[in-house]
Amino acid sequence: MPTTKFLLPEDRIPTTWYNVVADLPKPLPPMLHPGTREPITEADLEPLFPPELIKQELSTETEIDIPGAVLDVYRQWRPAPLIRARRLEKALDTPARIYFKYEGVSPAGSHKPNTAIPQAYYNKQAGVEKLTTETGAGQWGSSLSLACSYFGLECEVYMVKVSYQQKPYRRGLMETFGASVAASPSELTEVGRAALAADPNATGSLGLAISEAIEAALSSGGRAKYALGSVLNHVLMHQTIIGQEAILQMELAEDYPDIVIGAAGGGSNFGGLALPFLREQLGGGRSVRAIAVEPSSCPTLTQGSYDYDFGDTAGLTPLSLMHTLGHDFVPPSIHAGGLRYHGMAPIISALKESDLLEARAVPQTACFEAGVQFARSEGIVPAPESTHAVRVAIDEALACRESGEAKSILFTLSGHGHFDMQAYIDYFAGKLQD
Amino acid sequence: MPTTKFLLPEDRIPTTWYNVVADLPKPLPPMLHPGTREPITEADLEPLFPPELIKQELSTETEIDIPGAVLDVYRQWRPAPLIRARRLEKALDTPARIYFKYEGVSPAGSHKPNTAIPQAYYNKQAGVEKLTTETGAGQWGSSLSLACSYFGLECEVYMVKVSYQQKPYRRGLMETFGASVAASPSELTEVGRAALAADPNATGSLGLAISEAIEAALSSGGRAKYALGSVLNHVLMHQTIIGQEAILQMELAEDYPDIVIGAAGGGSNFGGLALPFLREQLGGGRSVRAIAVEPSSCPTLTQGSYDYDFGDTAGLTPLSLMHTLGHDFVPPSIHAGGLRYHGMAPIISALKESDLLEARAVPQTACFEAGVQFARSEGIVPAPESTHAVRVAIDEALACRESGEAKSILFTLSGHGHFDMQAYIDYFAGKLQD
Repeated sequence: MPTTKFLLPEDRIPTTWYNVVADLPKPLPPMLHPGTREPITEADLEPLFPPELIKQELSTETEIDIPGAVLDVYRQWRPAPLIRARRLEKALDTPARIYFKYEGVSPAGSHKPNTAIPQAYYNKQAGVEKLTTETGAGQWGSSLSLACSYFGLECEVYMVKVSYQQKPYRRGLMETFGASVAASPSELTEVGRAALAADPNATGSLGLAISEAIEAALSSGGRAKYALGSVLNHVLMHQTIIGQEAILQMELAEDYPDIVIGAAGGGSNFGGLALPFLREQLGGGRSVRAIAVEPSSCPTLTQGSYDYDFGDTAGLTPLSLMHTLGHDFVPPSIHAGGLRYHGMAPIISALKESDLLEARAVPQTACFEAGVQFARSEGIVPAPESTHAVRVAIDEALACRESGEAKSILFTLSGHGHFDMQAYIDYFAGKLQD
Repeated sequence: MPTTKFLLPEDRIPTTWYNVVADLPKPLPPMLHPGTREPITEADLEPLFPPELIKQELSTETEIDIPGAVLDVYRQWRPAPLIRARRLEKALDTPARIYFKYEGVSPAGSHKPNTAIPQAYYNKQAGVEKLTTETGAGQWGSSLSLACSYFGLECEVYMVKVSYQQKPYRRGLMETFGASVAASPSELTEVGRAALAADPNATGSLGLAISEAIEAALSSGGRAKYALGSVLNHVLMHQTIIGQEAILQMELAEDYPDIVIGAAGGGSNFGGLALPFLREQLGGGRSVRAIAVEPSSCPTLTQGSYDYDFGDTAGLTPLSLMHTLGHDFVPPSIHAGGLRYHGMAPIISALKESDLLEARAVPQTACFEAGVQFARSEGIVPAPESTHAVRVAIDEALACRESGEAKSILFTLSGHGHFDMQAYIDYFAGKLQD
């Protein structure tokens, strides 16, 4: 019987993260201080992050060791399975081989704990008592809540109000892990109060929730620091565990991907898969087509400008050179809340500028159509974010049917959709718009 | 670093199911025909089940081969992990070693696909076009929907109305897998219409939903057959994959359980874990304390009589000798919908009569308290049903702290609670009653 699931023994979990910054064709432009517009220093970041994470954020080393305490937690669900989607291949009648790396096996149901765990760990080591953060769809908030629960930290989550209202179960999950959750804009911060004064019915945005979480950390008298779930260099680096495992698992499958695909909101899921494969290519190994998929309603990579911009609405963060739709851009309320971010990770943006990756924007109804087809073939209901990768994987497999090429296609199924069933219910009811 | 997760390679998945009927101290009393009260024959069951499942239901063979096509599907998520709950042990400050077998890794999120997959397979082989079934909390309904989607069968689910209303996401999941879902009592069957005529606001029960699903199969002109998710001999047998894997994984852990624990509604989850360990004991191997945990609001094993009774409300099923609260018993509406069944599997009932297992009833608030403690330690939010096993595992571990004994405790975490977060939200809000 053909093997469909490629596991790795626990002792083959990668023990270092990969830092693509060391290998980029051109040096990554520095972040700039929001006040002086000078390149930021370690000292500038100290109010927000613990020393080890600042070091990682600014590091140009190729590899950074994963602490044993982090590996201990990773091993609860890692190595995450790489699965060949044989039933989907059959349903599509394609000569392509389709693989997915399934990150939904983590306790929070997505790839986000890969960085939440080390972030909580390093903060705990530095004596921090509480982490503040924002969350859109809730995947990041629940992952940080989980990580804080493991390491005995308080967790305060600002959840974009539209998601707070649409996804009470996601909020329930964070509270089960012991976090406190506020709808953003909230009355808890100056930024939030100002937003509510301007529009009492404001439904919020990721950029605004980031501003609130940062303000809460900065005004904590040093008790709290801030954690971000994507975009930053150290976050993408933590996620490279995905692609590093996938390379070993593709060896077990005696195959190598021609195409790697990931959904891209801030860029950490896509980068987590693609960067280790790009490392092979940049080092003279096999080349790969890397496709970042974004929603057509928030087309950062395909339509945004490549400019220095803030990471949040209020302008509290450093400025980063990235693809951006403008830090005051408020995307339409789509169900893939994790992809509604105005900017894109500087690393991913730089790779796009160097033509080392492709970007594609897809509308949400086509994504849910792909998600349903995937669920009926493979049994796993994808998170709305993940359906973007499924859509393009299916499109590429259908192109293979046309051309007769037997390509190898690998995508990250970054999370399951158990907390997003309303989106599927709305899709079946014909209520979703593009 | 200590190992916490005990996997098995795919090629060590057990290839037979274990049929405890062959090993019972006394022969299992036969089911009786509801009309004649004579022992049922294969012919009596033909309107409901395909030939191979009838053969298994009445079999006295010790082992039955698992078909290759079923193993192919099992291998998507099996062997399911056995995990040592080290963080929970630490939180409890107990010398006990706590292990859980985690069945929530299946695509439907519970142990139910272990039997849904073979049931769908054998029906497809027999030329059946459609399966009808009932579901309480929705775990069984979504598992059969998944299985039918894999094998190209239609699926019609009668969902107890109180759950249909409380758990729209569970319904959304079944529909995503392509099933049709009706609230029971429904207008689709005579039994349902009669129940609605008697009480238009009836919120339903598992027993009534079973009657509806059976009537729908019997009146299909042979197109449809019926599938049951627990209670029957062949269902418990399919679930023995759980305990068989656990025995191999406990060997990897170089340990053996003193106590095995499972939540018991119809008995298949508990039996799936416990029966292979009882086989060892009955064969002269190590003995084990097997504890079946039920809700104190539906105390079938601890309070029910041991009598011949119907499996459904309308009296359409054969009569089984089992612990029962009466086939017209309607338990209070608790969140562990999967445990709200008036009867108990005849196999489990017989083992109870032979003093080969213990039964314990626990109230739901104590279960949710244990579920939250487990989630904060191990990261996995248990299904309300599974919290019953968690409660008793924690109680036994705390008893070890008192006595200083370092016992080895193993329980099934039969499913995750992603579709049951309203229960946790209600628990935190103090809205749950015992």
